[in-house]
Amino acid sequence: MAPTAQPETLTPLLRDRESVMVYDRSHVLGPDTLRAILEAARWSPSAGNSQPWGFIVGLRGDDTHAAMVEVLSSANQVWAPSASAIILTLHQVATDEDHELAYSDYAMFDLGQAVAHITVQARSMGLQVRQFGGFDHGAATERFAVPPHWAVTTGIALGLPAGPDDDGEMPDWVLARARLPRSRLPLEAFVHSGKFGHPADFLTD
Amino acid sequence: MAPTAQPETLTPLLRDRESVMVYDRSHVLGPDTLRAILEAARWSPSAGNSQPWGFIVGLRGDDTHAAMVEVLSSANQVWAPSASAIILTLHQVATDEDHELAYSDYAMFDLGQAVAHITVQARSMGLQVRQFGGFDHGAATERFAVPPHWAVTTGIALGLPAGPDDDGEMPDWVLARARLPRSRLPLEAFVHSGKFGHPADFLTD
Repeated sequence: MAPTAQPETLTPLLRDRESVMVYDRSHVLGPDTLRAILEAARWSPSAGNSQPWGFIVGLRGDDTHAAMVEVLSSANQVWAPSASAIILTLHQVATDEDHELAYSDYAMFDLGQAVAHITVQARSMGLQVRQFGGFDHGAATERFAVPPHWAVTTGIALGLPAGPDDDGEMPDWVLARARLPRSRLPLEAFVHSGKFGHPADFLTD
Repeated sequence: MAPTAQPETLTPLLRDRESVMVYDRSHVLGPDTLRAILEAARWSPSAGNSQPWGFIVGLRGDDTHAAMVEVLSSANQVWAPSASAIILTLHQVATDEDHELAYSDYAMFDLGQAVAHITVQARSMGLQVRQFGGFDHGAATERFAVPPHWAVTTGIALGLPAGPDDDGEMPDWVLARARLPRSRLPLEAFVHSGKFGHPADFLTD
């Protein structure tokens, strides 16, 4: 993977996070590693402890994984199967008669938090993830029999990054995209004080 | 703070995260610390790099903070001001004529991720956060002149946890709530494979 500009102030688990597109195709995720990564989601905070998240896990080589690859966008079909796992994320969109927990307006927000915790835990174990939205949500809902009070939301590719001399048998467009420099808006664009649009005082003092 | 049951498999920045209610009222957040914490949000991933997040930052003692405390629910007014900062989070809910980035369906999800990154960075600096939704969103929108294409979403109290012998001058109900044991659904309830509702094979093998 190409070097990327990252602020040195961040803690290493965040500083060294990258949305990796080229994974080691020989790496296998063991059950203990998977459990630890999903425990990170489990202990994520949520509104009123609603825990409005779900994960369908496909491991390279199993039937769930094969079914997931079928519903990916054609671009994502090229690189995502190189990862050891593909995880589809879900959030609760309505109450369930059998479920004690009511629907929370913050379900998608809390799913995002849980996925970030997955990312951090994976990083602590030498792994990386790349998230994506490019798949046929309707086909995934049907294939995995997702009930109406849940919504398939995003995909996560999870695996061990390929080594520097391993192109992962990827076409040039994937390798080029994986090397794109990262960019972000400056803090002044989104950190306010006093009122919206006024950069926070501590940024300009 | 009371001891809490946490899985030992998690990386320390996640394992030792707690939604702390009692903070050190003498702690002041310096600009370098604040910047690093907000850089964590800045470098968070988002759909198409849409970066659909915003933060209004109030520091204990400044006018923004005082205005925030006024719009908090009465329960949150009791404990949240003990933290060194209160941050209101926003996500983009529509396109902006002046903004190059289109609205993303994943804005709330991505805000959740950015807030999780804030939490992890804060933890790496010895700080904790507690998130809350209990405040007058309409009053906050008005007070901070939030434009219609943004939505005030959640609140974050950020600070240094009070020491074990410091009750933070909190009433008994806060101290009792802060000591409540944490609970979560088992992994089998939300980690599926094959189809929704079927616990992932690696959990039962």
